[in-house]
Amino acid sequence: MPGRAEIEAAAARIAPHVRRTPLWVLDGRALGIAGPPIEVWLKLEHLQVAGSFKARGMFNRLLANPIPPSGVIAASGGNAGIATAAAARALGVPAEIFVPTLASPAKQARLAALGARVVVGGAAYADALAACEQRQRETSALMTHAYDQPEVLAGAGTLAREIEAERGLPTSLLVSVGGGGLVGGLAAWVAGRCRIVALEPERAPTLNRALAAGAPVDVEVGGIAADALGARRLGALAWQVLQRHPVESLLLDDEAIRAAQRRLWESCQLAVEPAAALPLAALASGRLALRPGERIALVLCGANLDPASLT
Amino acid sequence: MPGRAEIEAAAARIAPHVRRTPLWVLDGRALGIAGPPIEVWLKLEHLQVAGSFKARGMFNRLLANPIPPSGVIAASGGNAGIATAAAARALGVPAEIFVPTLASPAKQARLAALGARVVVGGAAYADALAACEQRQRETSALMTHAYDQPEVLAGAGTLAREIEAERGLPTSLLVSVGGGGLVGGLAAWVAGRCRIVALEPERAPTLNRALAAGAPVDVEVGGIAADALGARRLGALAWQVLQRHPVESLLLDDEAIRAAQRRLWESCQLAVEPAAALPLAALASGRLALRPGERIALVLCGANLDPASLT
Repeated sequence: MPGRAEIEAAAARIAPHVRRTPLWVLDGRALGIAGPPIEVWLKLEHLQVAGSFKARGMFNRLLANPIPPSGVIAASGGNAGIATAAAARALGVPAEIFVPTLASPAKQARLAALGARVVVGGAAYADALAACEQRQRETSALMTHAYDQPEVLAGAGTLAREIEAERGLPTSLLVSVGGGGLVGGLAAWVAGRCRIVALEPERAPTLNRALAAGAPVDVEVGGIAADALGARRLGALAWQVLQRHPVESLLLDDEAIRAAQRRLWESCQLAVEPAAALPLAALASGRLALRPGERIALVLCGANLDPASLT
Repeated sequence: MPGRAEIEAAAARIAPHVRRTPLWVLDGRALGIAGPPIEVWLKLEHLQVAGSFKARGMFNRLLANPIPPSGVIAASGGNAGIATAAAARALGVPAEIFVPTLASPAKQARLAALGARVVVGGAAYADALAACEQRQRETSALMTHAYDQPEVLAGAGTLAREIEAERGLPTSLLVSVGGGGLVGGLAAWVAGRCRIVALEPERAPTLNRALAAGAPVDVEVGGIAADALGARRLGALAWQVLQRHPVESLLLDDEAIRAAQRRLWESCQLAVEPAAALPLAALASGRLALRPGERIALVLCGANLDPASLT
C-alpha cells in the first residue's frame, strides 16, 4: 500500500515528464454556488499530458520498473490507455494497447497517433483484458493497470502533494472515483488531514457499494461518465488505503453531472469530460454542508472529450 | 493617455468583478517548440469573465463613470459587446448592444442571454456603430468603445500588472492586436521594461500598417481572426502609447494561426479562439530569435469559439 514516501519518490521520478497543472482560485459565486462565501480551488488536471491525471501514474509505473525490449502493454479504451501510450512514446519504448470493439474509432486513432500498436481484443473490456494478459505472458512486456498498482496510486497521489505545495491543504477535496486509483493516491497523501469527498455516478457506484458491503463488490456500470469511471469493482489497493483513511461517499445522477460539465464550459470556458464534472455537480447540489470560508478543491481530472459535445 | 497610476486604479476598481486568471508555466517542449530551452508562460485570459480580456476594460469603464438610468450602450458583434453586457448585468444596469446583420445568431443569443437588448443596426459594423451613436445621443447612455477609451486601455493593462505581481516580468510578452486596446494597456504598464511583440494576421494588419505609414490608417480586414482582430484602424490612444513605448510588429498567416489553435487544443486541451493563438503561432514560426533561458509570456486572450470548430 503506497504512502507518503512512495508519493514523494513518484513526484521526483515523474517531474521531468508531467505538467504542474494550474490551481485556479475562484470565488464560489463565479461558479454560481449559492450559500455562504467559499473559496473554490479548481485543479486544472485536465490540462495534464495526455489529457488526464492518469499520466502521473503511468509515468511512475514505467519509470519505476525495468522495461523489457517488448515494451509496455495495457488493456484500456480510455484515459489509462492514452496515458500509457503517451508515456511509452515519451520514454522511447513500444506500447501495445488492447481495446474492446466498443472503443470509439476516435480513441483508437488517438492511440495509434501516439505510436501505440492498437489491438482490438474482444467485445467487452473483460475480453480485451484477457487478450492483453495472454499476450503479456508471451512477450513479458511491462503491464500497466488503470487503477490497481502501487506505482499508479503513488503517481496519482502526487496531485495532492502538488496542491499542498502550492497553497496548503484545502478544507475539503472533491474527487471523482472509478476504480479508485486517484482517490486512493490522494487519501494516501492527505492521510486524514482534510476532508475528502469521493464522488461517483449513481450508475457506477463502485466505492459506494464497497462501503455498503464492507468490501469491493462487482457492480453494474453505465451512464454518461462510464468511459472514465466505469470500473466494475473498486481496486484492492484503493480499498486498503480507504480503510485506513476513510473518505465520504456521494452519488450523483447523470443530469447533474451533465449540467456541471456545461456550467464549466459556459461560465469558465473549461472543456472537460463528464467524469471531471462530478466535483462541481456535488458542490452545486447543496448536499455538502459547507461552512463559510471553506476552501474547496475540485479535481478536474480529464479532458478527453469530443468538443462538439459541448454545444 | 493611461499610465501606471491609471492601471493601478483600474486594478483596485475591477478586482471584485473579474478573475485572476491562471499563469501556467510550461517547458517550451510541451508546446512542441524547437530550439533552445525556454520557459513559456501561458496567461489563460480566455478563462476571464465573459470569455476574454475585454471584461477588464469594460468593468473599468462602467465603474469609473456615473451610469445614467438609461444604462450602457455599445456597438459590437464580438467580445467587447459580450463583455459590456456581462459587466452591465453584474452591476445591475441595462445594456443595449448594436450588432451588424452579419453577427452570428449564436452571438446575438449570447448577448440576449446576458440580459442585453440586442439591436441589429445595419449590414456592416460601421452601420451598427452609426445607429448606436444616434441612439446614444437620444438616451445619454454610457457608451463603451471596444478599444479606444482610456478606461479600456487601463483595464487591459491590469493583465500585465497581474502577470508581474505573480511571477515578475517575462523577457518577452507576445500579444495579439486588433484595435490596440490590449497592447496599448500592456505597453503602458510595462513601459519599456521587457520586449513586447505585437502580433497581427496578415489580413488584418492595423498596427503594422500604422508603423509603416507613421500614423494609423484604414486597412482592409479579413481572415479567420477577423471577428476579434478585425478593427479597420488602430486606436488613437494605443498609437500614443506605442509612440512612447515602441513594440515589435509581426504578421502571421491564417494557416499558422489555425495550426497554433489546433496545437493548443491537441497538446494542452485549451479551447481558444483563433485570435488567441497568434502568440503560439509566432513562437512556433521560428521568427522570434529566442535566447536560451528566455521566459516568454503568451497572452491567450479569448475563448469565444464554437467548440465544434476544434474537431
